[in-house]
Amino acid sequence: MSESVFMKVVARLRCDFTDKFGIPRQAGLAEHVTSRVVFEPEFRNPDALRGIEGFSHLWLIWGFDRVRKTGWSPTVRPPRLGGNERVGVFATRSPYRPNPVGLSCVKLVRVERDAPDGPALVVAGADMTDMTPVFDIKPYLPYADSHPDAVGGYTDALPERRLTVDFPASLAARLPEEKYLALLDILSHDPRPSYQHDPGREYGLSYGGFDVRFRVSNGTLRVFDILVL
Amino acid sequence: MSESVFMKVVARLRCDFTDKFGIPRQAGLAEHVTSRVVFEPEFRNPDALRGIEGFSHLWLIWGFDRVRKTGWSPTVRPPRLGGNERVGVFATRSPYRPNPVGLSCVKLVRVERDAPDGPALVVAGADMTDMTPVFDIKPYLPYADSHPDAVGGYTDALPERRLTVDFPASLAARLPEEKYLALLDILSHDPRPSYQHDPGREYGLSYGGFDVRFRVSNGTLRVFDILVL
Repeated sequence: MSESVFMKVVARLRCDFTDKFGIPRQAGLAEHVTSRVVFEPEFRNPDALRGIEGFSHLWLIWGFDRVRKTGWSPTVRPPRLGGNERVGVFATRSPYRPNPVGLSCVKLVRVERDAPDGPALVVAGADMTDMTPVFDIKPYLPYADSHPDAVGGYTDALPERRLTVDFPASLAARLPEEKYLALLDILSHDPRPSYQHDPGREYGLSYGGFDVRFRVSNGTLRVFDILVL
Repeated sequence: MSESVFMKVVARLRCDFTDKFGIPRQAGLAEHVTSRVVFEPEFRNPDALRGIEGFSHLWLIWGFDRVRKTGWSPTVRPPRLGGNERVGVFATRSPYRPNPVGLSCVKLVRVERDAPDGPALVVAGADMTDMTPVFDIKPYLPYADSHPDAVGGYTDALPERRLTVDFPASLAARLPEEKYLALLDILSHDPRPSYQHDPGREYGLSYGGFDVRFRVSNGTLRVFDILVL
C-alpha cells in the first residue's frame, strides 16, 4: 500500500445546491452562482485572509464527499464525451479518482469580516454541493496559472452545448432575483445527464429551497413550474 | 478539532533538486527544468493515462513534505514582498499553511509507457524537490482554468526580478546540455533568499549531482565553479 497523509477540513462551502443535479460541470461556467466559504471554528482567523481582497480569483482544493466509496477505476466516461467513451482518470476531472479531490477556480466577490460565522469568503462560479469540505484556498496567480494557449485534449474538440432557456416571467417572479439569474446560468448549461434526450421527460432541479421543474426539447429548456421545498 | 481525511500518495516527482535552494518560486518559471512523475506501484496502470497526451499542461496537487512541522501561522512573509511584510496565509502560496499542499501547473513533455518504473509522465516547469509526494494529476482545462485578466494582488505590483547569468563556457562544458539550460533558467530567477544581498557571498546550488558555485553583484550572477557531488 502506498503512503497516506492527513488533510484537515479547513472550511465548508455553503451554497444553494443540496444535491449534485444541476451543478455546472466545471467551475466558472455559472458566474451568477454565489457561495460562501465558511471556515471551521479552528480556522476562523481574519489575519489568515489579510491581503486576499487584492486577488480577483481564488483556487479551492476540496473533497468530493458524495462519491461512492468503492475505490477507483483507471478509466472513466466523461460526460463531455457523451458518457460512452473511456478516458484515463488522470486525463479527466472526474470525481472517481484515487484521491477524490476537486480543484476549482472561483471569483472572489467579497470578504465578510463581521459575519456571525465569519470571516467568510463570498465566491462566484463554484461547482460544488452545499457543505463540501474545503482543504485549501490559494490566490490565483495569473503569471503562473493562466495559460490561454494550453491545449485541452478532447475537451477542445467539443463545442460547449448551451440551451436556450424559456423561463416564464410569472415563474421567475416567485424567486429572489439572484437565484433567478443563477438558475438561468445553470439551466443554459444543460443539467441533464448526457445520455438522456427524452423530450417528454420532466426534471426537477433543487436550488436554494426551490424545486425547478423543466422539460427540454429541440435545444430549448422550458421551465414549467417552481415549487417551494 | 476539525475533521480530517486521508490522502494517498499516488506518485512521486523525480527531479534534479535534492534540496529547496534554487527551486523556482512558482511552477512554469523555469521551463527547461524537466522532472518525471513516477507512479507508486499500486497506481502503475497505463489505462489511467489514456488520452492524457492530448493535453499540453497538467495540474499537480502535491505535498510540501520538507516544511517544519510546527503547525501553521495565520500570516506569512512572502519572498515576493522582500520577506518583511506579513500577508494572510490564504492570500499566499506559502508552504506553511493548514494543509501543506502545493498546486503546480506543468507542461506535459511526453508519456513514457515502457519505462521500467513506468508508465511515467515527463513534465517541464515543476517547482518541487526530488521525491515530492503527488496526490493527484489533472488535465489543465483552458476554458475553466485560464484567466489572463485575473488580478494577482500584491504579486501584480512587483516586477519580476531577473538576473543576468554569466556562465563561462569552460564551466558549462562540464554539464550535459539539458542541465546547463535548466541552470540558466534557475539562476536567472535569483535563487538567493530575498533578504541576502552581500556581493562577496559565495553560494552553492545543488542540481542533478553538481554543486554550482556562484556570486551575485549588480544584477549579474557569476558562476565561478562547478563541482561533481
